[in-house]
Amino acid sequence: MLFSHEEYQEYQQRFMNTKKRMEESGVDVLLITNPSNMYYLTGYNAWSFYVEQLVIVINDRDQPIWLGRYMDAAGAKMTTWMEAGNILSYPDDYVQSMTRHPMTFVADFLIDQGLSHKHIGVEMDAYFFSALSYEKLKQKLPDAHFKHAGLLVNELRMIKSDTEIEHMKKAGQIVQNAMYTAEKAIYPGARQCDAAAEIYYDLISGTPEFGGDYPAIVPMLPTGERTAAPHITWSDQPFKEGELVIVEMAGCYKRYHAPFARTISLGKPSEKIEALSKIVVEGLNAALDIVKPGVTCEEVESAWRQATSRYGIEKEARLGYSTGLSYPPDWGEHTASLRPGDQTVLQPNMTFHLIPALWFDYEGIEISETFRVTETGHEVLSHYTRDLIIKGDLDIAPVIS
Amino acid sequence: MLFSHEEYQEYQQRFMNTKKRMEESGVDVLLITNPSNMYYLTGYNAWSFYVEQLVIVINDRDQPIWLGRYMDAAGAKMTTWMEAGNILSYPDDYVQSMTRHPMTFVADFLIDQGLSHKHIGVEMDAYFFSALSYEKLKQKLPDAHFKHAGLLVNELRMIKSDTEIEHMKKAGQIVQNAMYTAEKAIYPGARQCDAAAEIYYDLISGTPEFGGDYPAIVPMLPTGERTAAPHITWSDQPFKEGELVIVEMAGCYKRYHAPFARTISLGKPSEKIEALSKIVVEGLNAALDIVKPGVTCEEVESAWRQATSRYGIEKEARLGYSTGLSYPPDWGEHTASLRPGDQTVLQPNMTFHLIPALWFDYEGIEISETFRVTETGHEVLSHYTRDLIIKGDLDIAPVIS
Repeated sequence: MLFSHEEYQEYQQRFMNTKKRMEESGVDVLLITNPSNMYYLTGYNAWSFYVEQLVIVINDRDQPIWLGRYMDAAGAKMTTWMEAGNILSYPDDYVQSMTRHPMTFVADFLIDQGLSHKHIGVEMDAYFFSALSYEKLKQKLPDAHFKHAGLLVNELRMIKSDTEIEHMKKAGQIVQNAMYTAEKAIYPGARQCDAAAEIYYDLISGTPEFGGDYPAIVPMLPTGERTAAPHITWSDQPFKEGELVIVEMAGCYKRYHAPFARTISLGKPSEKIEALSKIVVEGLNAALDIVKPGVTCEEVESAWRQATSRYGIEKEARLGYSTGLSYPPDWGEHTASLRPGDQTVLQPNMTFHLIPALWFDYEGIEISETFRVTETGHEVLSHYTRDLIIKGDLDIAPVIS
Repeated sequence: MLFSHEEYQEYQQRFMNTKKRMEESGVDVLLITNPSNMYYLTGYNAWSFYVEQLVIVINDRDQPIWLGRYMDAAGAKMTTWMEAGNILSYPDDYVQSMTRHPMTFVADFLIDQGLSHKHIGVEMDAYFFSALSYEKLKQKLPDAHFKHAGLLVNELRMIKSDTEIEHMKKAGQIVQNAMYTAEKAIYPGARQCDAAAEIYYDLISGTPEFGGDYPAIVPMLPTGERTAAPHITWSDQPFKEGELVIVEMAGCYKRYHAPFARTISLGKPSEKIEALSKIVVEGLNAALDIVKPGVTCEEVESAWRQATSRYGIEKEARLGYSTGLSYPPDWGEHTASLRPGDQTVLQPNMTFHLIPALWFDYEGIEISETFRVTETGHEVLSHYTRDLIIKGDLDIAPVIS
């Protein structure tokens, strides 16, 4: 693949930063299995993370190594900046086999390179580094010193470059458009799956200027009693008059996300819900208001807490988390969270999904913003009313049978 | 959630079958982290597998236990057949924390129940059972005997019930419709993201009679040189005259999949590609022709090999795999593969994705079928021409600017 000079420089910088962090952590060889980290360091971008694959950073080499399934090596050559000699692959009979495991192939490679006694960093809590993968490595490399280097690269990703911010703003624009569509597509009588399909169309098609990428989580549309259960997906049942519908989704551009949530009331909401929605927005605004460089994550949460506790509101879950580059199943970066005890200090170009959701026994509300920390405060990536969206009789589209 | 008597019976049967397999394998307590296995045993269905969650089967209890994040317990109560006392949760400050890990909560539960010295089965190679999760369990439960029970439930899932087959046939109908849409949406000048959006719309909306669910893998549309790299997803660039485009996707209904692939030539294909496509179809037909109960997986692959080797064709990758119930990132079941050495014996209501794809340096072809093993042979789940789809000048829609 051809990269511009700037792109090439950015990859080089990320690679050097990783090697520096490795040195500080006493890691000689880093095995990267998190697809987001693989993409961040090499540009590798394909839906192949359902088989074992990794990027290997060796402290005295001048390029990372991609190692994966034979059929995916072609994609690695097309999407990464490394020379072809640094793209390695294992044969297909290692895939989902009862008798062979790809990590034994990886271990053999490390032995062959004289690295079997080194300090080897592994992403112990990455989604696609299984317990079995680790056991296989340990069996084949008894002299290696393994070290949990789970967030070594994730932490580098927290402060975005200007290019990354541009990507996230495009994602913010995509999801903003999709929310307009959601508002139109969700009405009593419409099937949930049809609304989800309309939303998906917008998220993938994007805008006339740039297309959308697949988000790391599908759009979630809990409705009625199911608004109390945030991660339930759509069914083929129709929306009903009087129900609440939560829309939680992300726009995605070149794997960069802008998550976003709003709540729609199909008809006049109860007084309780209308009042709660105002409290959520008040708390959301209060939290955003104090965002600026130097403030800690827990201070942002505390601003929400102060604004809402006077109403007797207590939120069990964290208020938000660092977001940006991601692959399924999560658009969070697994580093900083907006919650008590997290003393991460905000810096310019950090990006968070601030999601003050409240769930009760039989209903829930979510109203969220993805924001960037600027030099002096914050900016949000999508622009949409924060109020509870009330669809009155006039707004309700006719039932299509 | 309300279940019909038949549904309840099916869950009971699956639970009893699991306990029987546990007894045969010397497992007292089974920790199930694969979301497909969780759904299979309990009905739990939500996009919450990005945090630690599991179903625990204890050999002398009469219901499984769901254990997950506090905010997801509401969804577990809504979607599973167990009584509320068997839905347990850990507080949100365990989520993606540097200081606490959900598996220590799980270990404490097992200690509390007097199970800390038992034979504990774990799905060592499940996507969402991380190396760190296993380490945490081992640290907290030094007297336990851990056993790799990775495919214990997966293997039960291989033979589908009639209800499951009905779900898969609906998925087959959905993807068949989506392929018609793909054929229309893919033409020179159309952006790849717009074609992907059209396809997605169909997959999610489904049919007027039943809606679609999200497939475990996004539609893949490698085009031009990228047809050599099977797992690359769409871009926002336009399709070009003369290119090949591979469409690989699955219909999904209630988490049951019918994967499907076809190849489209935008304009007259090269003689080589036209000839290759005929060989692929000949091999595909030959493999399907020998499918019936009693035949082994490797014999199916061998039929393909015999039909195509006379043309000098050699396929590096496996020819197919068991498919059905799944969550991202894979629609395969990780049990049987159609490849040399796999002596799994076909039985009625097993279901496979037979995908005789060929990839060369600069191009590739995929033409696939998902089939069910019947009492006497096979039936495919989608009905669509197997030929290379050639879009001539007359078929090409005008470029929309």
